[in-house]
Amino acid sequence: MAVYTDVTEGELGAFLRDYPVGELLSYKGIAEGTENSNFLLHTTGGSFILTLYEKRVATHDLPFFLGLMDHLAAKGLSCPLPVRRADGEMIGTLAGRSAAIITFLEGMWPRRPTAAHCREVGKVLASMHLAGADFGLSRANALGPDGWRELWAASRERADEVEPGLAAEVDADFETFGREWPADLPTGIIHADLFPDNVFFLGNELSGLIDFYFACNDLLAYDLATCLNAWCFEKDCSYNLTKGTALLAGYESVRPLSAAEKQALPMLARGSALRFMLTRLYDWLHGPEGDLVVKRDPAEYIRKMRFHRAIVSPQEYGLS
Amino acid sequence: MAVYTDVTEGELGAFLRDYPVGELLSYKGIAEGTENSNFLLHTTGGSFILTLYEKRVATHDLPFFLGLMDHLAAKGLSCPLPVRRADGEMIGTLAGRSAAIITFLEGMWPRRPTAAHCREVGKVLASMHLAGADFGLSRANALGPDGWRELWAASRERADEVEPGLAAEVDADFETFGREWPADLPTGIIHADLFPDNVFFLGNELSGLIDFYFACNDLLAYDLATCLNAWCFEKDCSYNLTKGTALLAGYESVRPLSAAEKQALPMLARGSALRFMLTRLYDWLHGPEGDLVVKRDPAEYIRKMRFHRAIVSPQEYGLS
Repeated sequence: MAVYTDVTEGELGAFLRDYPVGELLSYKGIAEGTENSNFLLHTTGGSFILTLYEKRVATHDLPFFLGLMDHLAAKGLSCPLPVRRADGEMIGTLAGRSAAIITFLEGMWPRRPTAAHCREVGKVLASMHLAGADFGLSRANALGPDGWRELWAASRERADEVEPGLAAEVDADFETFGREWPADLPTGIIHADLFPDNVFFLGNELSGLIDFYFACNDLLAYDLATCLNAWCFEKDCSYNLTKGTALLAGYESVRPLSAAEKQALPMLARGSALRFMLTRLYDWLHGPEGDLVVKRDPAEYIRKMRFHRAIVSPQEYGLS
Repeated sequence: MAVYTDVTEGELGAFLRDYPVGELLSYKGIAEGTENSNFLLHTTGGSFILTLYEKRVATHDLPFFLGLMDHLAAKGLSCPLPVRRADGEMIGTLAGRSAAIITFLEGMWPRRPTAAHCREVGKVLASMHLAGADFGLSRANALGPDGWRELWAASRERADEVEPGLAAEVDADFETFGREWPADLPTGIIHADLFPDNVFFLGNELSGLIDFYFACNDLLAYDLATCLNAWCFEKDCSYNLTKGTALLAGYESVRPLSAAEKQALPMLARGSALRFMLTRLYDWLHGPEGDLVVKRDPAEYIRKMRFHRAIVSPQEYGLS
């Protein structure tokens, strides 16, 4: 939630001359995205987002991220379309950083998701999984089980500062994952961060998905498990069965789950909860201090980990 | 440079039903304005800025600020026009705060102002001074000489931390101002903060002024002196005579200065430099710490104070 890099109107005007977007009318730094600097542009050609990629997004991954949006949009999924320069390139350089222009999607992310929202999210996630099947590039999940171990190694020693007993609890989880993490499920392109702020609606209609900067190749059902965590819990961390049922039914209306995927859902949801707990824990312990820095409490995901650990049958999530 | 308050799409949609702006399509928190939360709205009726007024803007001053924009826009000055609700009001309540919708001005503020920009700024400042003459409300300048004394009292003791000798230097200035601050010059509505980020251009054409939240009644020539400080110095704090000449000529092409105003210019510029030095010094010593907080160095304005103190004749600014 910050603009890290400012750009002069002269530099930006010169940069845009290579893009078929018309004349620049205005640009405003927007308070979205924690990794990059984003600007909302008005030009005589319409509205666009300019992203300057800061250090945490590796430049060598940009062809994957932008190519994926290009691929998904061509398949009819509503997501930002990278605008190509006159020379066909999607990635330029501005203010010493890699930069791209993508189309602006109208719509609002739902601050209070309903079951109707959850159903639409399930449907679009499955559509994305199908549309990604023939995408030509691949990218390993940097925040899969190996990545979790690295994060844990950096935080384990101080984990009990956040909640006494947390270190032992997570150690035990890692042992379980080492034995039981599912291996033979369908894989493909996953969004990996499909939280409410990355899904836009106009009224009850889903108008688009954004922020593909965690997208990668991994288990498709893991992406669905992340959506259960992101969309189907209340503020008190209780699971909302109505929302879960809607999300899963929406997903299965487009891509039915295999028996093995259903069976694995509690383990995948547990792993996904651990993944978000670990990044929050890391930022909590290591992130910058300051009045303007909003740190997200890892406690929410500790609670979700415990919920999933207690699941006996995947039907408890609302699977039909 | 921060969004302090978020708003749900449901609240905002309900809020907008009272305004003739059509249906909400999107809203983004924008990284502009340090005092308030600002959002760029797209609706079926166009683009608008939504401002939520945070604590530092006193609610009882809002009729002055919004009424002034309304008045100036009606006089043909290009500035945001507050959108009135169906009941005629310009001020509503959203997320527990006073809130207003104003029209969005296209244009970019010049990161590297030229003499051509300075001439246009001079012209528009004079036009604003003339257009404000028959505005019906008034507001004292909270950051006039009495306000400076309060700020100084809160920072004096630690001023030498910033630069050894600063306390004695500023004390001497206050003595001078006590004797020599001009009293009998033309007064009226002044912008009081017309820095480059508050003036938009499209190409070389000035497209509008924004941010009237320091506007008040005070000496008109003091506003011009602030523009000399804000627009006509280089990064090394040297005065750019070409820019100063252009700004003053632009101003006088619309509203010629009286002999007394010209004579007072060095003292007014000195006071204006002190005013910005004092707010920066205060924030420097008392503001929040944090990686994301950009504190502006008071040193720039210490240097400008010294420059103005050494002026012998107002002609040195480029007056014709």
